[in-house]
Order: sequence, then structure tokens, then C-alpha cells
Amino acid sequence: MTKSPATVIALCLSAGLLAGTAVAQNAQSRADQLVRYRQSMYNVLGANFGPMANVVQGKAPYDAREFAMRAERVAFIAAMLPEGFVAGSESGKPTAARPEIWRDRAEFDRLLKDMQSKVGALSDTAQGAKSVADVKTAFVAAGQACKNCHDKFKRD
Amino acid sequence: MTKSPATVIALCLSAGLLAGTAVAQNAQSRADQLVRYRQSMYNVLGANFGPMANVVQGKAPYDAREFAMRAERVAFIAAMLPEGFVAGSESGKPTAARPEIWRDRAEFDRLLKDMQSKVGALSDTAQGAKSVADVKTAFVAAGQACKNCHDKFKRD
Repeated sequence: MTKSPATVIALCLSAGLLAGTAVAQNAQSRADQLVRYRQSMYNVLGANFGPMANVVQGKAPYDAREFAMRAERVAFIAAMLPEGFVAGSESGKPTAARPEIWRDRAEFDRLLKDMQSKVGALSDTAQGAKSVADVKTAFVAAGQACKNCHDKFKRD
Repeated sequence: MTKSPATVIALCLSAGLLAGTAVAQNAQSRADQLVRYRQSMYNVLGANFGPMANVVQGKAPYDAREFAMRAERVAFIAAMLPEGFVAGSESGKPTAARPEIWRDRAEFDRLLKDMQSKVGALSDTAQGAKSVADVKTAFVAAGQACKNCHDKFKRD
């Protein structure tokens, strides 16, 4: 039996398909969802950054296609990150994000933009790379850019 | 003081920058990380699918650029999802993924591929769309494809 569009959408909602944003019941759960969204983005980013670090450290073999794919993913997610720091996302479930992010937003935005630039460059470099030597400098610059922001704005 | 590449990478690791994969200490924490990675991907996907559902339902205004951006993100993340179901990811922290995923992998893969196809089509459609009427059919098809897989392979 074919279901109407409205029915399909309602079923999606009731199935919890839209966990994350659409069905916030109150301000607290909305804040929790924003923090969870941010943490999820960073988790996906880190899960792709990690294997690249292993390669650069010589702990895993270099596979040009996989390295480029992970670099592209990191760059794609990095571009989404500002949405993880919108108004309302400073509280909610436990977070490693320091309140200074929202108090010194210009500096935070500067470091975030620098990171986006460096991971973008890493992705560009990785596309044409043939060995780990080709990507090492760009990878280290990206890692340093991550660290610069964490040192200032992320709790240990 | 300029730090060596090895130092930078070590610092990234110690800063927990690579949460998600690189520093698994044992099989259990590895399984937890795999489940967390999968849940994070779905959370990011859902956080972008939700606002599109609001638009299609008339609960939020249609913004062509934002809708296309969210559709592109969903398609991008959907392409990553197979990595959330690798060997070892069937156990670990509490998960809504049914064990049938790993017992009937051909059917799961078929439904996942169908979803990737539908969200890819939604993203393509959204790029040139000018009104919610232009994207509604593709959105509903994508939502139905999500639901088809959840009905069979996701716990309530």
C-alpha cells in the first residue's frame, strides 16, 4: 500500500529518524541536541583524522585513495563545524567546549577558519599525492591548526 | 618555538584530538569507538535531514541554498555509512543496530545502497530547485528509503 507523503514524513519523525534537531521538546533538550550534534561532527572528523595520523606516523601503510578520501571527509565536516557553535549550544549535556568560545568569538572564529583552510589544503594536496612524503607537511599543518584551537578553547 | 612533526602528532594524540579510532586500547574500547562513530554519522545525517523535513512539512520556510546544502551533506554522510558497520561494530556500547544487519548483510547492503541512491537523487534535485514543490517527491522517496531500512534493522 502506497503511503502519502505526509504519512511517510510523520512515520520518519515517529521512528526517531530525525534525532538531532526536529523534535526538540524544550530548551534543555534543544541544547542537548546542539551539543550532541557538535560532538558528533567532531567524532566523525576525528575518526577520519586518526587513520591519517597513523599513516603519517608510519603505523599504517599509505593508500593514496583512502588518504585522499579521509582528507576530503575531514575538510567537508570542518566546513560544517560553525553550526556546532550556534547560540544555545554553549550549555546542555557535558561538553569540552570552553565558555570562552562564546566570549571571545572573534578569536575562536579565526582559529576555526585557519583550521578549515589547513584541512582544505590537506585535502587538495592529498588528491594528487603519491606517497606519504607528499602529504606529511600539509597533514602536520592541519594537526597544528586543530591543536591551536583545542589549546585555547577545549577542556582537557 | 617550532615543534617537530613528530611532536605535533604526539601532542594531537595526547590532546584526545583523535578520539574515535586511533588510540583504541583494547577490543572493547575499539568496539565502543566503532559504535560511537556509527552513531555520530547518523546523528550528523539526522541533524541535517530534520530541517529539510520541517521545510517539506511547511513548518519552516524554504531556502533553496540551505536546502541544497543540507541535502548535499546527507548524501555525503550516507556514502560514509558502510564504515559504520564494519566487523567489530556489532557489539560495544548500547546500539539500536539490530544483529540482523550482520546476519543478513546482503539485504542490509541492498537497503543502504537504495538509501544512498535516493539521498543522492535528492541532493541532485535540490541543486537546481526553486521551490519546495520541486524537492518534495525526492525528499519523500529519501525518507521512505531511510524508513525501509530502519523498519528491518533498527531497534525502536
